[in-house]
Amino acid sequence: MKVLVLNCGSSSLKYQLIDMSNESVLCKGLVERIGIDGSVLKHEKDGLDGKHVVEVEMKDHKDAIKHVLEAVAHPEVGAVKEMSEIEAVGHRIVHGGEKFASSALLTDEVIEAINECVELAPLHNPANLMGVEACKAILPDVPQVGVFDTAFHQSMPKKAFIYGLPHELYTKYGVRRYGFHGTSHLYVSQKAAEMLGKPVEELKIVTCHLGNGASLTAVDGGKSVDTSMGLTPLEGLIMGTRCGDIDPAIVPFVMKKEGLDADGIDKLMNKQSGVYGMTGISSDFRDIEDAANNGDEKAQVALDAYCHKVKKYIGSYVAAMNGVDAIVFTAGLGENGISMREMICKDMDFFGIKLDAEKNNVRGKERVISTDDSKVKVLLIPTNEELMIARDTVRLSK
Amino acid sequence: MKVLVLNCGSSSLKYQLIDMSNESVLCKGLVERIGIDGSVLKHEKDGLDGKHVVEVEMKDHKDAIKHVLEAVAHPEVGAVKEMSEIEAVGHRIVHGGEKFASSALLTDEVIEAINECVELAPLHNPANLMGVEACKAILPDVPQVGVFDTAFHQSMPKKAFIYGLPHELYTKYGVRRYGFHGTSHLYVSQKAAEMLGKPVEELKIVTCHLGNGASLTAVDGGKSVDTSMGLTPLEGLIMGTRCGDIDPAIVPFVMKKEGLDADGIDKLMNKQSGVYGMTGISSDFRDIEDAANNGDEKAQVALDAYCHKVKKYIGSYVAAMNGVDAIVFTAGLGENGISMREMICKDMDFFGIKLDAEKNNVRGKERVISTDDSKVKVLLIPTNEELMIARDTVRLSK
Repeated sequence: MKVLVLNCGSSSLKYQLIDMSNESVLCKGLVERIGIDGSVLKHEKDGLDGKHVVEVEMKDHKDAIKHVLEAVAHPEVGAVKEMSEIEAVGHRIVHGGEKFASSALLTDEVIEAINECVELAPLHNPANLMGVEACKAILPDVPQVGVFDTAFHQSMPKKAFIYGLPHELYTKYGVRRYGFHGTSHLYVSQKAAEMLGKPVEELKIVTCHLGNGASLTAVDGGKSVDTSMGLTPLEGLIMGTRCGDIDPAIVPFVMKKEGLDADGIDKLMNKQSGVYGMTGISSDFRDIEDAANNGDEKAQVALDAYCHKVKKYIGSYVAAMNGVDAIVFTAGLGENGISMREMICKDMDFFGIKLDAEKNNVRGKERVISTDDSKVKVLLIPTNEELMIARDTVRLSK
Repeated sequence: MKVLVLNCGSSSLKYQLIDMSNESVLCKGLVERIGIDGSVLKHEKDGLDGKHVVEVEMKDHKDAIKHVLEAVAHPEVGAVKEMSEIEAVGHRIVHGGEKFASSALLTDEVIEAINECVELAPLHNPANLMGVEACKAILPDVPQVGVFDTAFHQSMPKKAFIYGLPHELYTKYGVRRYGFHGTSHLYVSQKAAEMLGKPVEELKIVTCHLGNGASLTAVDGGKSVDTSMGLTPLEGLIMGTRCGDIDPAIVPFVMKKEGLDADGIDKLMNKQSGVYGMTGISSDFRDIEDAANNGDEKAQVALDAYCHKVKKYIGSYVAAMNGVDAIVFTAGLGENGISMREMICKDMDFFGIKLDAEKNNVRGKERVISTDDSKVKVLLIPTNEELMIARDTVRLSK
């Protein structure tokens, strides 16, 4: 069975075509500037010399998906002979609210329910749904499945997801912790159990998804019991451009000082903060590391603060689970940030965490990177959300 | 030497007269409704049958302090023969910003510097300063000392006090973590070292000041290295009426939903949240515990969420210090909440924390409440901020 996996943003989309008989990626690509001047599709396939680039006006997601399907079934650069070989489409959906604790076949009722979650993720869900609608129009007979970033975290107990706010804000508006990156946290926790040769049900794992957006999850017995992102993906760690945890009183304080309205402060916290705002340099940790290595004090503080925060979240989740068997690093920085992993795991021997400097000297490979005598295993696991989406798509479209 | 200790709020003040030759409290009391109809002073002294109550109009802090001094030097209920026996006055000052890492003699320059911190604590510092000005007017020749709630935390490293926000917010407005309850965290950490018979410099301690306002501090080698309150006393734990940590994106989200401005949301988070807002019952944990015992689900969730948060902060500070020798409970709930201490310490044996149920069955007494074989000692220590203020007052007014 061949599954097309789509991850639609407001003006971009990523796709992979996966052959589920052996879980191999047949081809993949990226469309950018949908609905903006300069739309471009970049398509990749093993064995292809460089990328196949299509520069043509794509006025909406339907246009973009048409070009994706053309590339996928292209006689030279494509991976299938006919579009009809695509037997199912899996969509990443950011916010499933409390309605979706697992993936769902995208019936009209389900789409309506996702629409009701739009106000919880006003930037993401509408874009995800544009992709769904476009696929329904172009491939009306192909089953489509939605896989939610929030679903894995629906197992959190109420003590972990409720905020210290008036209860009406929860009942009226759904203000609670949802958590994100669920598909990634689920994937790497299952993979960790596999690598350790133990059932995930018997393990306590802290999964660290450290990308441009970043979150940690406490996975106890295979279930998310706490996670660092909240109502939105702003809470928790310091990120590329997001502030993460702050004193909430800072919000009205800065609004008054800077004359910002609600949207203005939201933008400041989501787009102008994080290591970018702390340093004025970049949202890319590689640039921050370079600057720190060249003696930039703010860059060094940003890295130190980032690692301090990750350490503290690890400690807090060990407390929440009363133990830990493994720490997993994944996503861009988690997979490639050799010195960041080192800084995070340094001085954590009270917990039984000992990183092996040599084993840690690797990027993007599945590997145990703790010492042989480390009580807590530290694992590097490249995430694969697309594969998880494809697996659920197969399961639900049969 | 006899020292008057004053803690002035906007419409209330607390006082103690302490004989520093033996650190005994000679008398103490409370004035309420200063500048409001129904002003009242309640004065206590050992051996006095009940409280000495003065109900008279007190239009400002100067009025109130005059009545305090009258009570203190009262021929029947007083503790000194003449006001002149009061040799120094110590004031609790909430916010010392980055200017004060320790207590200070209240010279004109120092008062001016405290005034500059007013915008960081607009509710507290002006009230504290009203008390200072009133004392200067009434006791012009008596030295006065300011002891800051923030001072102990000035030892925090930058990685712990900086937020993931644009750096200009720190340089322009002083937006950073300051932390509060410093006098209490300092007192109980020193007392813990005394009880454990070890120099505080060799200990890693997590101090839990759990009152109506609540904060945790990581005290490493006698120094605060991290604390849960932030720019203001709103951050951190769930409190009586304060929300503590939330996704900062909730602030603009709720503002828009509820049509609130910056002051409105500030009030919601500070006054209408916490266990009060979560339950609609009370800000007093005793009421919440009663309700939970009577089957109120929201009350049970509030208690569970509260303890979950304290546990997580303990874990995070153990990570920040790479170890822990002692956990200290203090302040109202910390000193009296037998079942809360039990819930917090339950399932913490990974850290080496084992509470002794029998020893824990006590209120407001200095005591080790962990089992003899608990690697981490758990201590109950009644706080005594007034004594700390008096000690610094003696030291600085000589």
